[in-house]
Amino acid sequence: MKPAHSPATAAKPYVELIDRVREANLLESSASVLGWDQETMMPAGGLEHRSRQLAQMARLVHQMKTDPRLGELLAACEAEPSIKAEPLSSEAVNVREIRREYDRATKLPTSLVEELTKISSVARAEWAKARKASDFKLFKPWLERIVKLLREKAACFGWPKGGEAWDALAEDYEPGCTAAQVEAVFKPLRTRLVNLVSRLMASPRKPTNAFNEVKLPISQQEKFVRFVAQRIGFDFNRGRLDVSTHPFCSGSHCNDVRMTTRFHEDNVNDALGSTMHESGHGIYEQNLPADAIGTPIGSAVSLGIHESQSRLWENQVGRSEGFWKWLHPQLADYFGDAAGGLSMRDVYRSVNIVQPSLIRVEADEATYNLHIMVRFEIERALMSGAMSVEEVPAVWNTRYKEYLDIDVPDDRRGCLQDIHWSMASMGYFPTYTLGNLYAAQFFERALSDIGDLSAQIEHGEFSALRQWLTAKIHSQGMRFGAARLCEVVTGEPLSADPLLRHLESKLLPVYEVA
Amino acid sequence: MKPAHSPATAAKPYVELIDRVREANLLESSASVLGWDQETMMPAGGLEHRSRQLAQMARLVHQMKTDPRLGELLAACEAEPSIKAEPLSSEAVNVREIRREYDRATKLPTSLVEELTKISSVARAEWAKARKASDFKLFKPWLERIVKLLREKAACFGWPKGGEAWDALAEDYEPGCTAAQVEAVFKPLRTRLVNLVSRLMASPRKPTNAFNEVKLPISQQEKFVRFVAQRIGFDFNRGRLDVSTHPFCSGSHCNDVRMTTRFHEDNVNDALGSTMHESGHGIYEQNLPADAIGTPIGSAVSLGIHESQSRLWENQVGRSEGFWKWLHPQLADYFGDAAGGLSMRDVYRSVNIVQPSLIRVEADEATYNLHIMVRFEIERALMSGAMSVEEVPAVWNTRYKEYLDIDVPDDRRGCLQDIHWSMASMGYFPTYTLGNLYAAQFFERALSDIGDLSAQIEHGEFSALRQWLTAKIHSQGMRFGAARLCEVVTGEPLSADPLLRHLESKLLPVYEVA
Repeated sequence: MKPAHSPATAAKPYVELIDRVREANLLESSASVLGWDQETMMPAGGLEHRSRQLAQMARLVHQMKTDPRLGELLAACEAEPSIKAEPLSSEAVNVREIRREYDRATKLPTSLVEELTKISSVARAEWAKARKASDFKLFKPWLERIVKLLREKAACFGWPKGGEAWDALAEDYEPGCTAAQVEAVFKPLRTRLVNLVSRLMASPRKPTNAFNEVKLPISQQEKFVRFVAQRIGFDFNRGRLDVSTHPFCSGSHCNDVRMTTRFHEDNVNDALGSTMHESGHGIYEQNLPADAIGTPIGSAVSLGIHESQSRLWENQVGRSEGFWKWLHPQLADYFGDAAGGLSMRDVYRSVNIVQPSLIRVEADEATYNLHIMVRFEIERALMSGAMSVEEVPAVWNTRYKEYLDIDVPDDRRGCLQDIHWSMASMGYFPTYTLGNLYAAQFFERALSDIGDLSAQIEHGEFSALRQWLTAKIHSQGMRFGAARLCEVVTGEPLSADPLLRHLESKLLPVYEVA
Repeated sequence: MKPAHSPATAAKPYVELIDRVREANLLESSASVLGWDQETMMPAGGLEHRSRQLAQMARLVHQMKTDPRLGELLAACEAEPSIKAEPLSSEAVNVREIRREYDRATKLPTSLVEELTKISSVARAEWAKARKASDFKLFKPWLERIVKLLREKAACFGWPKGGEAWDALAEDYEPGCTAAQVEAVFKPLRTRLVNLVSRLMASPRKPTNAFNEVKLPISQQEKFVRFVAQRIGFDFNRGRLDVSTHPFCSGSHCNDVRMTTRFHEDNVNDALGSTMHESGHGIYEQNLPADAIGTPIGSAVSLGIHESQSRLWENQVGRSEGFWKWLHPQLADYFGDAAGGLSMRDVYRSVNIVQPSLIRVEADEATYNLHIMVRFEIERALMSGAMSVEEVPAVWNTRYKEYLDIDVPDDRRGCLQDIHWSMASMGYFPTYTLGNLYAAQFFERALSDIGDLSAQIEHGEFSALRQWLTAKIHSQGMRFGAARLCEVVTGEPLSADPLLRHLESKLLPVYEVA
């Protein structure tokens, strides 16, 4: 008999563990193709059957991921000296993250999972009705049930001392992230953003909106955005770009990444922004380590880090002056005369217009984060019990006035605008702004690491930036948590300063504020 | 305690049986979406991962379909007096067909299944190489292995007294079909077809080929074939039409049917024929009984009956004079001037050109069946052991001379042209001609049941025919086997006469043979 610590015996539980996790993730990747198909290709009549297909696959994946055998294998792996000795080895990271997911998956009673699924399915339809009627009262009883169930869910997970219920939910989207940490970054961000926006709004020198009103046939827009996506590094041999109502990116494998965009004849800039955004997500997925796909060390860190990749290409690159110095001379190839009268400066300023508005998904780069803060504060208070569902519209409207200096005329354009809460997603919203913050902090570091990055962008050269992102972030998989990854990559913990520097240094000149 | 024969107790095993079968078929329907995606949408880079996804799903489906619990439930159901009493009730049909599939799935040793999968995967690549080199010798050792394994496979299944090995394999495609039955219909068909073709070829009055050479941009072709598909009854709200190298139709559910076609700028008739053919398959799938999907009584009977539906729309309708009386005046809407100089008679004769040729998939409606006979005779002899693999090219070439009066110049255009055998499919080829035979026999009956069908077709009215097909065939699912279905629908066993009447009565006038 071999001694218990021999390498051969030691490897066995780990090998079986990884085989089982890959098996579950393989089936999940098939479900992902069906999800993509539903949004892009499926005929309308197929919806009911598709729901059954996806429910079955979710059930099978859940069975695989909560198999008690995984618990035994995890315990055996965790007892391994080699795993303990090198906590940042790929093996140890896999064990750590599989443990995290296994514990969460097994902590929820089936009855609660089923009730949440059932209620959120109905609530989503009721939310749509309430939004159409612009009447929060219709949605209130459903949101109350969801809040109650989510607080139960959070209690099942529990949270470390000093934490709160919101943290337990955010763990699904941004592992390790706490409300207190979010608040610490959001607070200074808010003060300075509100100040920045009010200075911009006070400026008499507004940029022209002309580029955002250019009319261009969709077939030409498509050629244009495909050119840009390919140029910044999305590999069309290992991915697709299609059309859906709400753009998204879904990866079933690093070699098969599906992203979507949307087109409006009179808003080519929306298609460009959406495509660069989703390309950022897609480039992340395509550059995860191929041999580790289906395991944590081959997976994206968190929604916040994923969003940092999309925002970096959309904003730090796509709304920079250097980018338009490169792209503006090529517009004629795709636009013909449609943007003929617009100078590079006109276009660059057009894509950087700031205007407080009611709807989050239409917000500009600066005010967007203020929309997120309103949601974060409300969902945090709902989870802690500091606020009741009844108070949501009033608090929402008050905060919009305070942060964005805007009056909310009705619930439809107010607290009923987003689908997230109706789907029982709380703890999700801040990942959007965390993405903006990480993007700015990563990009500052890239600028200092790659000496002539600005000049490269002016020449349409993006490969050094993409390689830097792959080396520093994509190839790491889940080795580090989001907060730690930020420190490893930039040498600093996450801070509001880089994003504020980025916005202030760009937008004050755009608005010609001294 | 309830007595053993009480309805409640009696129902239970049947309910569980059906739940389990639906569960397996639900997962299979998801795999079908992935298969469709692979041919139409998947980026090239996704192939390796897709193979893993499909292999996993096939494994899971196989586990479900061979679960010993199914055997227990089947035994319990088969003992039910109500099942025994009414063998054509939906319940009895389900039990009968689930038993058939379960027995077949459990009769094969895993080692044989795995060896067949492995060998045929390699053999497919070796076949492609051999075809490229036009050298049967390169493929010979692989076909020998396949023949050996298929004979083992047939032996595992066994066959009724008086049958032969080929029958056991055909059961996968055309349940209940035997080589002797096929021969009994093919023999008279062959004699009269060879005679018909030689009379046509001897005619000095050849139809013009002009319609088959019309050049039309693909976007216009697409509008044209979509119009026809929709008009004959394919429901685009419950299905799609896309493009793939080899047209196919795959149904994941009657409300989500995916068909494909192909376009060549200089061959609009190919796209039309392909689309009408696949629409026939699609219309069958869309009109299976919705509440029985995932069970045999909601499934198609056999490949031969499926093919009858595609051929009926492609040939009996799409190559009829009445159809072109309706469609010809509308060509200008889709073709502009591209077919301006062609009369209705020109077009109708163009789509009915007969010309013996080397390649099955390019063959016309009449000679096509002679291609099939060559393949059937060879695979039958290989299975019985009456012929060795070595003899394949010589026998192939001799038969082509005898049946089609054509010299085969090389293996590439001879016995290496089809992929089927390399995929370990034997017993499949005859279903194509069975489809032609069933189509002709069904259509003759439809003409007599629907008094003014010919006049309806001349006016582009297809709903009565479609409803007749649905009532007689689609809605029956697997209630009857193919041979019995033919008797129930037409009052006669399958015969070569209707197809010969169809071809002779149409083609002799087209070629102006007295």
